Amino acid sequence: MPRLGSDDARARFAAARVARLATVSGDGVPHLVPVVFAVAGERVLIAIDGKPKTTRALRRLANIVENPAVCLLADEYDEDWSALWWVRVDGYAEVRDEDEALTEARALLGARYPQHVSDPPEGPVIEVTVDRWSGWTASSQE
Amino acid sequence: MPRLGSDDARARFAAARVARLATVSGDGVPHLVPVVFAVAGERVLIAIDGKPKTTRALRRLANIVENPAVCLLADEYDEDWSALWWVRVDGYAEVRDEDEALTEARALLGARYPQHVSDPPEGPVIEVTVDRWSGWTASSQE
Repeated sequence: MPRLGSDDARARFAAARVARLATVSGDGVPHLVPVVFAVAGERVLIAIDGKPKTTRALRRLANIVENPAVCLLADEYDEDWSALWWVRVDGYAEVRDEDEALTEARALLGARYPQHVSDPPEGPVIEVTVDRWSGWTASSQE
Repeated sequence: MPRLGSDDARARFAAARVARLATVSGDGVPHLVPVVFAVAGERVLIAIDGKPKTTRALRRLANIVENPAVCLLADEYDEDWSALWWVRVDGYAEVRDEDEALTEARALLGARYPQHVSDPPEGPVIEVTVDRWSGWTASSQE
């Protein structure tokens, strides 16, 4: 069961189309949502869709304010279990809504997801500062 | 953005081939891994692969002992964002290794995954008691 090195894990994560974001409430209850994202150096940027008034109340954002530790996972399932792999990101998140942060995130997400260009997200941005890229692949072949 | 009812969410989750399990350490740090699983009523059973000595040290198991609150997510990504959906399970986990629990889990997982029959997992079982099935689908069409 070969572990992926940090660079391989980062490259695989950056190329994935979807990841799952785990946040934790102040009293230790985890919460999961699928997210689209863009990697910028040692940061992962995640847009929040929907109207700002609604999104402010989202559990993931409330959790990040209570506890900034987050985890992201990208993985691919295949019935051939020798093709399985996953990549995990451990880090700390911050909710950002300054113009500069929103502009950067929308540009990077728009470049990855044409869906974002036609219907840009209106909410704030989750910025994850990565502590560790790790991963696993069932086979060592690329 | 239609929310799924509890029954629909449960049915979609039970049919998914992979889910992601979020556990949380005693000091509030989340951890994510992809898992194969089987639904049995209001429980989700997850096998742990590998040798018992190694698996005892797995972060997910240590976390469950420190904090039983867990979250599971099944989702499907599609470049057509109107086809997106996800289902979330909130619950509490317990690590079980009595013969009865292992026998049940292996039977249910073996029925879903032929891969398990040819190479049955040797470790203990994570049993999640479900508090809530919830979910979301981009379109209301089945």
